[in-house]
Amino acid sequence: MKIRGTILHTPNKGQLEVLEDRVVSTDPLGVIISVVPYTDDCQPDIELDKSVVLLPGLVDTHVHAPQWPQLGTGLDEPLEKWLFKYTFPLEARYSDTSFAQRVWQSMVPKLLGQGTTTAVYFSSIHEAATTALAETCLAFGQRSYVGRVAMDHPDGTPDWYRDLSASDGVEASHRSIVDIRSMPGNKGLVQPIVTPRFIPACTDELLSGLGRLAEAESVLTQTHCSESDWEHGYVLERHGTSDTSSLESFGLLRDHSVLAHGSHLTEQDIHVAAEAGAGVAHCPISNSYFANAIFPLARALESGLRVGLGSDVAGGSQSNLFRQCEHAVTVSRMLDDGVDASVGAETRGVHNSRIDIPTAFWTATAGGAELLGIPVGVLAEGFVFDAIAVDIGPNSSVDLWPELDDWPRVFEKLVRCSTATDITRVWVAGNEVTTSSDNQLQSLQPS
Amino acid sequence: MKIRGTILHTPNKGQLEVLEDRVVSTDPLGVIISVVPYTDDCQPDIELDKSVVLLPGLVDTHVHAPQWPQLGTGLDEPLEKWLFKYTFPLEARYSDTSFAQRVWQSMVPKLLGQGTTTAVYFSSIHEAATTALAETCLAFGQRSYVGRVAMDHPDGTPDWYRDLSASDGVEASHRSIVDIRSMPGNKGLVQPIVTPRFIPACTDELLSGLGRLAEAESVLTQTHCSESDWEHGYVLERHGTSDTSSLESFGLLRDHSVLAHGSHLTEQDIHVAAEAGAGVAHCPISNSYFANAIFPLARALESGLRVGLGSDVAGGSQSNLFRQCEHAVTVSRMLDDGVDASVGAETRGVHNSRIDIPTAFWTATAGGAELLGIPVGVLAEGFVFDAIAVDIGPNSSVDLWPELDDWPRVFEKLVRCSTATDITRVWVAGNEVTTSSDNQLQSLQPS
Repeated sequence: MKIRGTILHTPNKGQLEVLEDRVVSTDPLGVIISVVPYTDDCQPDIELDKSVVLLPGLVDTHVHAPQWPQLGTGLDEPLEKWLFKYTFPLEARYSDTSFAQRVWQSMVPKLLGQGTTTAVYFSSIHEAATTALAETCLAFGQRSYVGRVAMDHPDGTPDWYRDLSASDGVEASHRSIVDIRSMPGNKGLVQPIVTPRFIPACTDELLSGLGRLAEAESVLTQTHCSESDWEHGYVLERHGTSDTSSLESFGLLRDHSVLAHGSHLTEQDIHVAAEAGAGVAHCPISNSYFANAIFPLARALESGLRVGLGSDVAGGSQSNLFRQCEHAVTVSRMLDDGVDASVGAETRGVHNSRIDIPTAFWTATAGGAELLGIPVGVLAEGFVFDAIAVDIGPNSSVDLWPELDDWPRVFEKLVRCSTATDITRVWVAGNEVTTSSDNQLQSLQPS
Repeated sequence: MKIRGTILHTPNKGQLEVLEDRVVSTDPLGVIISVVPYTDDCQPDIELDKSVVLLPGLVDTHVHAPQWPQLGTGLDEPLEKWLFKYTFPLEARYSDTSFAQRVWQSMVPKLLGQGTTTAVYFSSIHEAATTALAETCLAFGQRSYVGRVAMDHPDGTPDWYRDLSASDGVEASHRSIVDIRSMPGNKGLVQPIVTPRFIPACTDELLSGLGRLAEAESVLTQTHCSESDWEHGYVLERHGTSDTSSLESFGLLRDHSVLAHGSHLTEQDIHVAAEAGAGVAHCPISNSYFANAIFPLARALESGLRVGLGSDVAGGSQSNLFRQCEHAVTVSRMLDDGVDASVGAETRGVHNSRIDIPTAFWTATAGGAELLGIPVGVLAEGFVFDAIAVDIGPNSSVDLWPELDDWPRVFEKLVRCSTATDITRVWVAGNEVTTSSDNQLQSLQPS
């Protein structure tokens, strides 16, 4: 397949590259064979409108799929109360697989329509709902990691929503891995991922069992890490060490492990995680509500830590990753400046914390892909063609003034001001995907 | 006129009121005569679809109209550099009235389309561009305050963009008031407003002249106040007192005066401003970039200060006031919690700073209206019918789950997740307005 258009992407941290009027050629597996300037003999299959630009698809490294129905609401409590008041009761509903399917079939095409071509999902503890989520991702063609949530701690979970024992949790997680890998038609687009919720919700036995499972099955792991004062402090108290070191001791800090939030990581934690090849799913909006502090993104990147961006649906109230990019920049300014005017300017913030829009977009694409170890997020030879076409013309949400706006400004405006309605086409692994649940029955037939 | 629909509004601070299936009747001037439950004999002129709700129109108390073309970009510098690097050069372009008209005719319908039925504008220093802005607001039917910017300080402004002298500035501002008041067809929908940019850009002579002008012409005033460390500190150094007290001494702290930002107001400043009947245009997104601190909204409201919401286009990167509402809540959580994890939780933030979505929406509607002293922002008898119809159905950006979502949750989701495309109809003073510049030639004929 050959697509003609102008490419905007960030192949390196903070570096916007603009490739005007290119033709991207892909092989039958969706791998990009070449990106060349358009000439009359190119004969593209698809020619994008002049007002449309081509960007890499967005990689959301932290999505709680079952929390989708509470997106945008219920953010008034601290994390430890929010879980019991809103989130566990909602997640417990997914014992009803038909409810789960209704949610998945609504959510997956909407996320694709917002440009999320890769999603790393926490599901619920339910195996059937988890398998249904993986099936829905496959049917709609979304690249994804789907993790059955494991949680068994009698203090950190309610008795009506937990694994019955550590061994039950490990076995169910194992079966879920097998189920996802054996889905008909799945050629690696949808991957399982070992998913202990976080240390407060898991016994040591479950954590070590899941560490062994991840090793035995060669599968990625994800969990929450040093998210809030409470969560960070809880682990210090229970294990006498930080979240990161504790996860390492259980075999859960592996190459490409996804640590969600990390707002309270110390320098030492960042070093340990980076050495292991793990990284952080930075969830800027959610962190503003639940983390009690801002993740030091600039410092983490300088230290060589892998970082992707995450919506943290529904702790984060925006599933659209462009909104998360925008907020990542905004909170980096707030970390730099501080927030309380009654404190002197010199001590109010943490200087050198600022990032820019290209860096935020990099975390949402190439950075997330590096965190997961997958060749997407950049539109260049050898990468897989996961991409979105975004309208920035006069009828879009992006207001451009040709006499003022060069490409870097256009890109900034696109990231800050575009909405889902501006995304006109979405491709995953070279295949155009549907972004509407209207076609769900048709789409749910695996191709 | 009679409109049938379900009303969501916040008649009091933080109090959501839901009035299901009501009929709103208005008189020929757009004043609401009654709001009654629908019955078969109501015979409404307009029946909203079941998936659509009726909200008061949004009141944006701080918009820099000439900065519209840089919305979403150029936020990388501190305020004092940003002005000279990006903003003054852009504003200077408005000496070209045809450029100004192109911008206004694009901007005004877009703001209306986002639900901004009232806007308080800073224009540029140019009289012709300012009159053209007022004419455009009138033609499209947007309730607005339009202020020619006055600025003459040889240090605080560039020599290529300033009033030539204090008396020139006062006289030009006076002529602009007369021009706006005498526009054919203007029956008070578009009001002039005295607009010294801020103390660093104005000589004392200009400030006192503008104070006298506002008094003589009985016109509102607006300016920036205690916005950043630099701006707040500059006034302390030049006048030996805070911005608020200094403005008071120049006659610029009046009933319904709009003080933009106010992030560095002291308790004493809040008291002085509240006593004068003035209030703050709270601009949460802009403040995250330029104010070096978060405006203490909860504390200000408790102290009885009037507060409206402002986009601060283009220091604020989102013109859509729903985005500003969302961010007002988000930053209130960050002020409460603090940002730097290396500081102890007890001293990191400012406790009791949190606000909720109904409070944010109140600032964007009734609160802004009280700040300006106009009877809009509430859909009740005696108020003027400035309103928006918002689709929250299955094809909207708002994802609802009937088994989970009661009205307060629906409202939260609407504020956090709706986009301009979900706003289906907009009324100002009882008249439905166009929200597209496609009709601009037709619309620009005053009715």
